Amino acid sequence: MAQLLKVQNFTVSSDGYGAGTGQSLEHPFGHADPRVMMAWAGATDSWPNRTEPGGSRGLDDFLVRDFSRNIGAEIMGRNKFGPVRGEWPDLEWGGWWGDDTPFHTPVFVLTHFPRPALTKGDTTFHFVGGDPADVFAQAKQAAEGRDVRLGGGAQTVREFLDAGLVDSLHVAVAPVELGDGSRLWTTPDELDDRYEHDVVPSPSGVVHHLFWR
Amino acid sequence: MAQLLKVQNFTVSSDGYGAGTGQSLEHPFGHADPRVMMAWAGATDSWPNRTEPGGSRGLDDFLVRDFSRNIGAEIMGRNKFGPVRGEWPDLEWGGWWGDDTPFHTPVFVLTHFPRPALTKGDTTFHFVGGDPADVFAQAKQAAEGRDVRLGGGAQTVREFLDAGLVDSLHVAVAPVELGDGSRLWTTPDELDDRYEHDVVPSPSGVVHHLFWR
Repeated sequence: MAQLLKVQNFTVSSDGYGAGTGQSLEHPFGHADPRVMMAWAGATDSWPNRTEPGGSRGLDDFLVRDFSRNIGAEIMGRNKFGPVRGEWPDLEWGGWWGDDTPFHTPVFVLTHFPRPALTKGDTTFHFVGGDPADVFAQAKQAAEGRDVRLGGGAQTVREFLDAGLVDSLHVAVAPVELGDGSRLWTTPDELDDRYEHDVVPSPSGVVHHLFWR
Repeated sequence: MAQLLKVQNFTVSSDGYGAGTGQSLEHPFGHADPRVMMAWAGATDSWPNRTEPGGSRGLDDFLVRDFSRNIGAEIMGRNKFGPVRGEWPDLEWGGWWGDDTPFHTPVFVLTHFPRPALTKGDTTFHFVGGDPADVFAQAKQAAEGRDVRLGGGAQTVREFLDAGLVDSLHVAVAPVELGDGSRLWTTPDELDDRYEHDVVPSPSGVVHHLFWR
């Protein structure tokens, strides 16, 4: 069984941005409001960070509950781990994800700056350089036969798309315009030369784009 | 964690029938053509009976791949096991499902006529009477903390709906008219007094109806 590389629950604005400008420790999404961007997912029963019962179990929930299915590792860009650039000044700070991460698998953080692996609960972050194919090979090995999630951000997804490594994408387009930031695409149709593509409007207001090859 | 009772991938015609008239050993769906009714599911990568690679991995596949997720038992009407009515004349015949069933869990077959349990591969069929609440209690115990799938047919789904036991339903409405048979509903809106309801048209031509409470 081939191990797939999958983008899941990745949310962009109507103009294609995964995050706004000015990302910082206090504002991981920059000028974008993550509560607005991710509202469709946060309302579902299966949202990993949900603390109260009563979530929706319609279309959006079917997509959210697939987040961890048969996933054995995640690859993420450095910006998804934290806002630090350049050398790591403080090995104590453990990233944005706290001790109770939603990953529960090995996570491979792309960086040119080495640092030791970091374990938070049942998630171990490995800090790796190399080209996308090398990193995917490492993640596949760690995933032990299961698939690998490509967690973003937008620039990281683009790099792996350009390398031809992405097998499927679920991208939710939120009804909010950002104008500037970290861009995934100008229009979802850009990928139609390489992927099958279902467009699925949700009653919540987001439009789900499902790509596979 | 509550154990849910879930209808999944249940397909009806545009006029609400889950099967046609004249069900028999040769024609499990009566005058309905199961290849047409279930074409949307059979085309997906995750269809349990798929023997060839290359299935679709869009919207329909997200729904099909949820079929077994966290399911620990199935309840089905007698007609879904086989066309025999009344006393069981032949305990050798093992139902429509063969030795390689798609269930892989205990299955509870509703019948007034007792017969010993029957094991096919990793699926054991139990033949049980009693009212819907009793049967659900037995299935929950067998499911060991996981959810229970209510497998149909239409009459069985109606009985459990009328007993207020169904927590969620995924019903696919296929673009085919049957005119007569085993009916789930006159219109999907019938359930709107009791359930939240997402209507999700698929590019394949079926319309997915997702209900939860």
